[in-house]
Amino acid sequence: MSTPISSNSQISQKETTSATKNKGGLEGIVAATTAISKVEGEIGRLIYRGYNIHDLARTTIFEEIVHLLWFGHLPNKRELEQLQERFATERTIPENVMVTLRSLPASTEPMDALRTAVSAWGAVAIQGKPTIDQAIALTARFPLFLAAFDRLRRGLEPLESKPELGHAANYLYLLTGEIPSEEHVKGLNAYLVLLADHGMNASTFTARIVASTESDISSSIVAAIGALKGPLHGGAPSKVQDMLREIGTLEKADAWIREAVSTGKKLMGFGHRVYKTTDPRAEELREMARLADANGFVFTRGVEELAIAILEELKPGRRLYTNVEYYSAALMASVGLKGDLFTPTFAVSRVAGWSAHVLEQINNNRLIRPEAEYTGPTDLAFKPLNER
Amino acid sequence: MSTPISSNSQISQKETTSATKNKGGLEGIVAATTAISKVEGEIGRLIYRGYNIHDLARTTIFEEIVHLLWFGHLPNKRELEQLQERFATERTIPENVMVTLRSLPASTEPMDALRTAVSAWGAVAIQGKPTIDQAIALTARFPLFLAAFDRLRRGLEPLESKPELGHAANYLYLLTGEIPSEEHVKGLNAYLVLLADHGMNASTFTARIVASTESDISSSIVAAIGALKGPLHGGAPSKVQDMLREIGTLEKADAWIREAVSTGKKLMGFGHRVYKTTDPRAEELREMARLADANGFVFTRGVEELAIAILEELKPGRRLYTNVEYYSAALMASVGLKGDLFTPTFAVSRVAGWSAHVLEQINNNRLIRPEAEYTGPTDLAFKPLNER
Repeated sequence: MSTPISSNSQISQKETTSATKNKGGLEGIVAATTAISKVEGEIGRLIYRGYNIHDLARTTIFEEIVHLLWFGHLPNKRELEQLQERFATERTIPENVMVTLRSLPASTEPMDALRTAVSAWGAVAIQGKPTIDQAIALTARFPLFLAAFDRLRRGLEPLESKPELGHAANYLYLLTGEIPSEEHVKGLNAYLVLLADHGMNASTFTARIVASTESDISSSIVAAIGALKGPLHGGAPSKVQDMLREIGTLEKADAWIREAVSTGKKLMGFGHRVYKTTDPRAEELREMARLADANGFVFTRGVEELAIAILEELKPGRRLYTNVEYYSAALMASVGLKGDLFTPTFAVSRVAGWSAHVLEQINNNRLIRPEAEYTGPTDLAFKPLNER
Repeated sequence: MSTPISSNSQISQKETTSATKNKGGLEGIVAATTAISKVEGEIGRLIYRGYNIHDLARTTIFEEIVHLLWFGHLPNKRELEQLQERFATERTIPENVMVTLRSLPASTEPMDALRTAVSAWGAVAIQGKPTIDQAIALTARFPLFLAAFDRLRRGLEPLESKPELGHAANYLYLLTGEIPSEEHVKGLNAYLVLLADHGMNASTFTARIVASTESDISSSIVAAIGALKGPLHGGAPSKVQDMLREIGTLEKADAWIREAVSTGKKLMGFGHRVYKTTDPRAEELREMARLADANGFVFTRGVEELAIAILEELKPGRRLYTNVEYYSAALMASVGLKGDLFTPTFAVSRVAGWSAHVLEQINNNRLIRPEAEYTGPTDLAFKPLNER
């Protein structure tokens, strides 16, 4: 397969002067140019290579999206079949990875298991510069590593993939041993489509920095998994469920939310570094949640509306709206995933974007190496150990 | 142990306006404030928490430096003994890490083995927010993981650490099974002291981004290992030796270097993103190399002087001087390390700085999340699969 991914990594002066807004988190700093996805925070728009996410969410499968991200265009029928065949061929776990997964205690966090499995896989499978073939090999295996770990920790043997199943369906099959329902596949697929890429988020930026040293693709992706694990990035969707469970009923929601916001407690699933309106992915997930569970939806949607109103009242001007995590939890639970698989399943989707960014980075590379402002002393007089 | 590490992560407007120089690699962008180390590229000065590296290089042991980086001051005798005892206690490899290392083929790159071992270790040993105790536990184990892998790939069993040996000596002992000579310990120790931290380099920046998501310390360090692996960062010191071997004799050096520079070949060990004069670490390593091997030194030093003169002649104004890699290779070879252990040994040192930066980052944290300039189309009309 050819590698049409390209970008222009020259940064114009206009964008980078917005650096003056920097508050320690590189806000407003343009760290790279990309043709993969565009996040428009003010209007709540997300674009994958020219296509609005609302046009893709319920009309495409994950394999079409990874084709779009890697090759730059949506596949035709033949191209899609080709990619699906490649995915099916790659559905194997090398012996050393299986040994490594078996050696992990059942209490291991699934994100740690995934990070370790990808690292162990890279150690035996990856050599040379990142390629699309490597991106396929890696993306195809994320569900395998996770499902194998999940079954092992439950005392069950990992299962063989079914070549006739698509990526989302095969993942659910590997977890449960049952062919999943069409609704579950549709729900998980939509989630995988929606989360596949999102501009210069922390894990993608991490993957690009590692790639910029001319390191290998597994080092980049392992690093990105570690970044996604953090609760300020991808590590918190299951906490939305914990919050909703704590709130309990719609009657108690107003008092609970007011109490939480006034005591400085963070409302899970609201607010985003970039979006100053509802996250467009949350809008799609909201519709999926409405269809999946009409009764549960009344409560979830009710809490959402109350929370937005109370946040606007108590934190005026902060513009805290629903983010992607709020309905992710509901959707993932509705397809049968356990809470501690939510963030790893985010990774099952995002590895497509990470690898597209790695390929884009090395296509026109410059080592990403910023500077630091030193705030310590500069002229301390050294004393040897026996004089201290 | 207390955690006196602190920093002020407010970025002033003055520094960040230098962003206009950005060429895609975040040059001149201040990404964080730090009180750990200061790199002054124009004058070739490196400071660890107030102390000039020239004052530390041949007067301290690595354990004193990690104490300085983590706790903010050089230890007195009692503090040093305490830290050394902690290091000695932590010298164990959990069973799952050993199983993982045994499962790797002998052809595995040592950096991949280290990345995988640290990830597997973190999966069983690390929970909660980063602490100095975790930093000690991790830093103490880097030599163990590497030496165990190196012995396994040679068909030998890993050895038990010797509590009476310091960090550098124990590393050499674990590799060879022999108590190392005082000269070798001194040489390796100086290397470990010199490489322990270096401002906002790519791997340290990677570690801080991962920490900024509130992920765990092993995720941060695993990510940093992946970044260090890249030849544009830490992955190339053994290539200096390859180059010197290819040049062969001082008589052939002038022609070889001219040919290389005119045909666009990169001279290994010269040039640095920040230093526009000789790297101060290279000056220290040069003196160590002179003492370690007076005969070899004539050649290495001769090639260095020729290369600088020819680079200045053929690339005027570029200010390409000797970087830390040039004499690192000679030093590491002189203490008996194999070429493919040079970069992992860099990591044995730098994990001290990485972990200090992780602790500093979370002490006053803000998610590091820059933006990207999107260069692709924004309004492509979606067509379903059967119309493509």
